[in-house]
Amino acid sequence: MTRSSIRVAVCAPSTSITREDARAVRELAAAEFPQVELVIHEQCFEADGHFAGADQRRLDALVDCANDPGFDAVWFARGGYGACRVAEGAIARMEHAAGEKTYLGYSDAGYLLGGLYRARIGRPVHGPMLADIRREGGDDAVRRALGFLSGAPDGLEPSLGRERHPVVAFNLMTLAMLSGTPLMPGLASHVVMVEEVSEYLYAVDRLFFHATAHLNGIAGLRLGRVSDVPENDRPFGADVEEIARYWCERHAIPFLGAADIGHDAANRIVPFG
Amino acid sequence: MTRSSIRVAVCAPSTSITREDARAVRELAAAEFPQVELVIHEQCFEADGHFAGADQRRLDALVDCANDPGFDAVWFARGGYGACRVAEGAIARMEHAAGEKTYLGYSDAGYLLGGLYRARIGRPVHGPMLADIRREGGDDAVRRALGFLSGAPDGLEPSLGRERHPVVAFNLMTLAMLSGTPLMPGLASHVVMVEEVSEYLYAVDRLFFHATAHLNGIAGLRLGRVSDVPENDRPFGADVEEIARYWCERHAIPFLGAADIGHDAANRIVPFG
Repeated sequence: MTRSSIRVAVCAPSTSITREDARAVRELAAAEFPQVELVIHEQCFEADGHFAGADQRRLDALVDCANDPGFDAVWFARGGYGACRVAEGAIARMEHAAGEKTYLGYSDAGYLLGGLYRARIGRPVHGPMLADIRREGGDDAVRRALGFLSGAPDGLEPSLGRERHPVVAFNLMTLAMLSGTPLMPGLASHVVMVEEVSEYLYAVDRLFFHATAHLNGIAGLRLGRVSDVPENDRPFGADVEEIARYWCERHAIPFLGAADIGHDAANRIVPFG
Repeated sequence: MTRSSIRVAVCAPSTSITREDARAVRELAAAEFPQVELVIHEQCFEADGHFAGADQRRLDALVDCANDPGFDAVWFARGGYGACRVAEGAIARMEHAAGEKTYLGYSDAGYLLGGLYRARIGRPVHGPMLADIRREGGDDAVRRALGFLSGAPDGLEPSLGRERHPVVAFNLMTLAMLSGTPLMPGLASHVVMVEEVSEYLYAVDRLFFHATAHLNGIAGLRLGRVSDVPENDRPFGADVEEIARYWCERHAIPFLGAADIGHDAANRIVPFG
């Protein structure tokens, strides 16, 4: 499965990364994945308010990476918020070479994965990003991403091996915000995996209210990790799995159990489709 | 405009209130609005995890109040989260008497206001709730609500006087979560007012991304107060009005300026329609 040389373009449609993180990932890649050539776009280090450069700058960098036939993959550097502002415009400018690529990321990058999947451009994949190097155990997350881009199958989410339906994976907030927008792909007959981080349980419940109302016709839902839940002034009264099961039941969506994805270094890889 | 006797049922489709708050509002009403009879449903004081009683209990209490021909209005006690779990079921059980009433609340009660407006049941009104008595200046908020229910016109949002389009008002999060669900009313040709509280500016931007994608065909948007914005680790780079104008412009929605609504004691009243 491994290829002799893999060229990976890194850009940041949401927020910026540090040069230290880039250096650490470059060193890991050079030591362990000599067949991978990482080209980190200078835009990744820029800042404009919240974002890694103004909307037009982030959009242009993404389009440059996607349309360059010299790259095999576009690896999103980091989430944090901002991809929804540039996704539609970027996808509208994508050319033939963009369709030949893998696009790897998660969290806020889900706006792009969703929009690309809807537009049937390339291969959107939910998995670790460059900035995950900062997490505890982040080396393993980056290894999983680089390994996947090199053709290694061992980083895949474990349920995929026996899954017959097409699959997508999203951060729950991102999926909720995608719903009904021009970036939302049709998900009929898909297994949908969701994960969340840093949201109160009442907010998770609210997101499930919204997202499940937009998921009619899916094959089922798998629940990834919901981590760093803040403590509220009173207990919610149900845990995350009960919340997911409740909303699935209301919409007659089969609840399929756990997914090995989340905002953590163990986040496994889910190629869309 | 004032009527000789107004019977107001209070229920809590979201979270509970305290007996102290109920007593304070009863005293204010008795002293200043002798024509208003407040009947506060016992369910308002119950608790089940996050909520003012289990879903079925909150739903039943709401339906009891709505279907009782002895009441002129249903006043929602408090927001906080939970109305979206009971709104569809409650509205499905509403009978003729429910259509003769005013429904007053905001924040999480917006799920009910939206669903009632969609179902053309009664008169949904965005305005202060009983629990606002706790706010600084909360007496005035409660006075405004009781005055409105008594027929006083001076608590209305000021732009309404010269507005020719039908109008609705929502908490922005609530509107975003309503979008595309069976509770979302058609808002073509409406002026839509939004307000928000306790959300990061990046989250406000994200909510506008989502909500404006669902507001095609509205007559325009008015921006209420966006208060208690937490400080992020970096400045967002745009203020709330710039965010609202940006997303309105992307969707060719006329931005109409400010609305005098918000999560505060000054929150003015917006009857839907």
